Amino acid sequence: MKVVIISPGRKDIPVWVSTFKKHNPDIEVEVYPDDTNREATEFIATWNPPQDAFEKYPNLKVIASMAAGVKHITSKKIPENVKVTRVKDEYLNYDLSYFVLSLVLNHIKHIPLYFKNQLENNWNRKMYHRPEDITVGILGFGNIGQAIGQLLQKNDFNVIGWSRSKKDVEGIKSYTEKELGNFLNKAEVLVCMLPHTPETENILNAELFHQLPKNAYLINVGRGAHLNEKDLISALDSEQLSGAALDVFKEEPLPENHPFWNHPKIFVTPHTASITNPKTIVPKMLENFKRFKNGKDLKDEVNLEKGY
Amino acid sequence: MKVVIISPGRKDIPVWVSTFKKHNPDIEVEVYPDDTNREATEFIATWNPPQDAFEKYPNLKVIASMAAGVKHITSKKIPENVKVTRVKDEYLNYDLSYFVLSLVLNHIKHIPLYFKNQLENNWNRKMYHRPEDITVGILGFGNIGQAIGQLLQKNDFNVIGWSRSKKDVEGIKSYTEKELGNFLNKAEVLVCMLPHTPETENILNAELFHQLPKNAYLINVGRGAHLNEKDLISALDSEQLSGAALDVFKEEPLPENHPFWNHPKIFVTPHTASITNPKTIVPKMLENFKRFKNGKDLKDEVNLEKGY
Repeated sequence: MKVVIISPGRKDIPVWVSTFKKHNPDIEVEVYPDDTNREATEFIATWNPPQDAFEKYPNLKVIASMAAGVKHITSKKIPENVKVTRVKDEYLNYDLSYFVLSLVLNHIKHIPLYFKNQLENNWNRKMYHRPEDITVGILGFGNIGQAIGQLLQKNDFNVIGWSRSKKDVEGIKSYTEKELGNFLNKAEVLVCMLPHTPETENILNAELFHQLPKNAYLINVGRGAHLNEKDLISALDSEQLSGAALDVFKEEPLPENHPFWNHPKIFVTPHTASITNPKTIVPKMLENFKRFKNGKDLKDEVNLEKGY
Repeated sequence: MKVVIISPGRKDIPVWVSTFKKHNPDIEVEVYPDDTNREATEFIATWNPPQDAFEKYPNLKVIASMAAGVKHITSKKIPENVKVTRVKDEYLNYDLSYFVLSLVLNHIKHIPLYFKNQLENNWNRKMYHRPEDITVGILGFGNIGQAIGQLLQKNDFNVIGWSRSKKDVEGIKSYTEKELGNFLNKAEVLVCMLPHTPETENILNAELFHQLPKNAYLINVGRGAHLNEKDLISALDSEQLSGAALDVFKEEPLPENHPFWNHPKIFVTPHTASITNPKTIVPKMLENFKRFKNGKDLKDEVNLEKGY
């Protein structure tokens, strides 16, 4: 069996190649555009392929997306009778939750401060807070938000959630649309996990920050579009907010000259809360390729008319 | 009622003063050596008092230690009939466990790397590990070590423990003295929580590091005396260890010119895993002073013959 990986510019391709090889030592793995004998290629794994790439494979059978999204495939020309599969990654909630737990614990234990102090050989210490004394508000208390909230709750934090419709999660008070003010008043740490819609764009702004307790901490793992960047800087400078951990940005990668990089109260991470993992996905792709070979239906096949 | 705080050089004295005031607005709090009317002083709260301090208080009744240890009091001259109390802080295990959880999560999520990258406006990211894929070894699986292990286990890490005698903790394999090699072979993250004894001094040395899996991570929350500092630097330079988080040191505060401060693979924290907290302790002291006033026995009184 042979698979060709098409994902120009991607840095972790060697990991994908070795993961394929690990799960099936007999498989032949080649990387576009350096792959050979394209007539023999039936299976492609891809993220963001060039416009005309698929046409070069006359015997193509299955295109497997290397991530959950498939718009990068369906927006290109797909030869007739070729099937497209997507990734369903059950680890999305899990990985995001542990990432947020890590950031919240760092905040209460003053870890960002100690990283900075180390640069100055500075031993100063500051009393930490305890999970049980801190209320974390999850702005966007949907599927992922609830997973984050439950992990934080399991680790003794007081958790409250805000979403359009009321949610029934044991031990976590769920606030709805009109109760935003009451929710924000209590959130000493605010975790933004909202979907990106016209209503939520720039929702993290001065008006919202001023409803949080003084010295609240902001964690954005939603989308860069949720944040009014200038308002954040002002809120940090006025000490309305004590700090912010940002994993998502209006422009990614965050431009090299962006003021967030050097702001002493902002911790920048490179959109790393949840990364599609070859280890999880490659076995699923291989299973699907085998199913195809054996004439079985594919799992997680995309309906090309609906587009998902 | 009046209490005098005797703890020369301590930085957080204002916090202790305000905590006393908060819990009893009528109390008079003074700080040695600027306190007045010493004839009226019955109660002292102290950490590391000067040799002759207590003699200056002719009507002293109770000396309350501001921490768990009391050697700093019992090694000084204590006037006859004066009682000494110690602190029993139920938060010791709790605080230490969450501190270690924070460091272990940071390690698997590459948080120290992202802090460094931010200094260079560098967006590079690296695939994280998942708790369920990582084995953490607790070297020193006693009372505190078990608390750490159980919190890590609750958060999906695989946990193993090593101690002199076998421990029975559900889901955590307990290794004993002669099985050290088998234990170390599996510990991708090693947490040192040993007591300081002649046998454990310098136990974290080249021989031990080489029994860990390649690229293991070291967390020392035991004592600085456990670590052979030169062997650590060598193990990091040879990539036998991928990094280390150190909260305790042979000399504290860590001297300003110590090579650990600037080592790119070492994260230094200022002995902050567990800090005695006025918020927990002050109410207990006040309760004891009140018990004395009412002729009741004191809680957590030290037996001065035994010394604890």
